[in-house]
Amino acid sequence: MNEEKMWDIIIVGAGPAGLTAAIYTARGGKRVAVIGDKYDSQLAMSGRLENYPGFEGEGIDLVVKMEEQAKKWGAEVIPARVLDLERHNDIFRANTLDEVYEGRALVIATGASPRRLGIPGEDKLLHRGVSYCAVCDGALFRDKNVLVLGYGNGAAKAAYYLSSFANVKILCTKKALRAEAVYIKGLDERGVDVLEGVDPIEIMGDELVEGIRYRFRGNEITERVDGIFIEAGAAPNNELALKLGLELDERGFVNVDHRCRTSMDGVFACGDITGGIRQVASAVGEGCIVGVSLTTMSSL
Amino acid sequence: MNEEKMWDIIIVGAGPAGLTAAIYTARGGKRVAVIGDKYDSQLAMSGRLENYPGFEGEGIDLVVKMEEQAKKWGAEVIPARVLDLERHNDIFRANTLDEVYEGRALVIATGASPRRLGIPGEDKLLHRGVSYCAVCDGALFRDKNVLVLGYGNGAAKAAYYLSSFANVKILCTKKALRAEAVYIKGLDERGVDVLEGVDPIEIMGDELVEGIRYRFRGNEITERVDGIFIEAGAAPNNELALKLGLELDERGFVNVDHRCRTSMDGVFACGDITGGIRQVASAVGEGCIVGVSLTTMSSL
Repeated sequence: MNEEKMWDIIIVGAGPAGLTAAIYTARGGKRVAVIGDKYDSQLAMSGRLENYPGFEGEGIDLVVKMEEQAKKWGAEVIPARVLDLERHNDIFRANTLDEVYEGRALVIATGASPRRLGIPGEDKLLHRGVSYCAVCDGALFRDKNVLVLGYGNGAAKAAYYLSSFANVKILCTKKALRAEAVYIKGLDERGVDVLEGVDPIEIMGDELVEGIRYRFRGNEITERVDGIFIEAGAAPNNELALKLGLELDERGFVNVDHRCRTSMDGVFACGDITGGIRQVASAVGEGCIVGVSLTTMSSL
Repeated sequence: MNEEKMWDIIIVGAGPAGLTAAIYTARGGKRVAVIGDKYDSQLAMSGRLENYPGFEGEGIDLVVKMEEQAKKWGAEVIPARVLDLERHNDIFRANTLDEVYEGRALVIATGASPRRLGIPGEDKLLHRGVSYCAVCDGALFRDKNVLVLGYGNGAAKAAYYLSSFANVKILCTKKALRAEAVYIKGLDERGVDVLEGVDPIEIMGDELVEGIRYRFRGNEITERVDGIFIEAGAAPNNELALKLGLELDERGFVNVDHRCRTSMDGVFACGDITGGIRQVASAVGEGCIVGVSLTTMSSL
C-alpha cells in the first residue's frame, strides 16, 4: 500500500467519542478515517436527549451533526464494520469486508452494547417481541402489554418512554429501582407499576413472545405479555481491543491514562469502551482529549 | 439560616463546566445554586466556536443555551461574585457582597484567566490599547496597526481574527509559533507577519498605547502601534480554592481524582481550574462527571 493511501489516524467507531476525536484531529490537519456506522451508536438509538449541554433534541440528530462537523474538516467517514485490527511495526491495519485501511495511529471508540440477561427464550425471540431498545422498537407495541425487564436508569427511561402509548410495567431485577429523579417522578405520575427484586426464569413463546415466567416474593408467576424490553446495563464492545492485545480492566473495558492512551503505543481509546459514566457529554470530553493528545503530543 | 434556604449544591462559576454540573445535578433532583456571571467565562469571550461537537456558532450563544438548560431543570443562576468560601462542619458557605449562600456540597468551576506578561505599561494601559481579548475589543482597531504579543494557539487565533479588519503582526515570545494547522494556514494565506523569539521590554504610551519596545535577534526595536493584544496562556482562578484550603498542583491548579473530587470531602472541581486542555468539550465532560458523582455517589 503506497503512502497516498496511508492515513494519519484511523478511528474505529462513529459515536460521539469517535466523531469528536475526528473533529479535533481533522481540524488539526491530520488525514483521518472514521470507520463505523453512526446509526449503530447508542446515541443514535437514545431517543430524546436533554442533558447534552447546548443541544436538546433527538440523539440521532446530534450524531448526524457531529458527523457533518467531522466531514467538514476533512475526515472521511466510512460506514463499514471493522472485522480485525493488527499492528505491523509502527503501522496499524483495520480490515473490513472489502478493504484494508492503514494508519499511523489508532483510536478505539467502539462503545458498549446492551447486556444480555442470559435467560431461556431471550436469544430465540429477539426481534420477535424481545428488544434492547425501547426507542427503536416501542412503536410496534402501541396499546399492547409490555414489560421492561432490568434495572437502573435504562429501565426507568425505557418504561417512561413506553408508557406514553403502551401498557407497561417494570420488573426490576435488583432489590430496588434506582434512577434519576425525573424518571422516577415521571413513572409515579403515570402510575407505572414497579415490581422490585424480580428473578426472571424464562421468556415464553414460539414464533413471538407470549409471556414471561419469574419468581417474585417466593412465588413463581407466569404472565401474558406482548413485548419485553431488556435494560440491564452495557457490556464493552471489546472484541477488537482484545484482538489487538490491549490491556483491559476486570470488567473488560480498555484501560487508559488521563491522556486516553492505552497500554499500546500509538493506540488511544475514548467513550464507553473505557468504562466510565456512559454519558454523551463525557464521551465527547474523552474524544476531545484524544484529539488534543494526537495533535499536540504525537509525531504524526 | 433555616433549612429552606439551604442548597444541596453550590456551584461557583457559570462557564461550561459549572453550567454542565448544574444541568446534571438539577435534573437529578437537587437544589442547585450557580453563583457566577456567564459573561465572565472564557467561552463567552471566545468568539466563533468550531470544535464543540454538535454546535457551531458564537461562544456567547452556547453559554447562554447552557444557562437556559440549567434553569429549565430548576437551577438558580445568581450573577454575583463569590468573595469568600468557608467550611463549617459539613456545611459550606459562599459569601457574596450582599448574601451568604449555604450548601451541603460545593463545586469549584472558577476557570482560568489570561496570563499577564508583567512588563511596564501593561497594567497602566489596560483598556487603553492593551487587551487580553481580541474578539471583545478588536473592533475598536479597524484599519489600525495592532500587535498580538504572546504565543501558541491563542496568539494565532487572535491574529487571524484581527487580520480580517486591521493590520496585524504577531510578536511571538517563544522561539516558535506553535498552533493548530488551520490557524497557521490562515495566517499564511493572509500574509500575517510573525516575528519569533521576541523579548518584550515595555509598552509605551501616556493616555493610550503609542508603541512597544522589544528585543529581536540582538536588536532593540521601537515600533509605533495602536493596540496590543496579549495572548500568553491562562492562569488558574484559584483564590477561592486557596482560601478553602484545597490541594493545588505545582502550577496552582486544583488537584482532582477521576471522579473530580478534590482533597476536601464534599468539594468537587471541574473545567479549567483543574488544569487540563482548556477546551469547551473537555470542560463539559468534567462538569458531567461532577454531576454524575453528585447524583449517584453522594448522600445529599
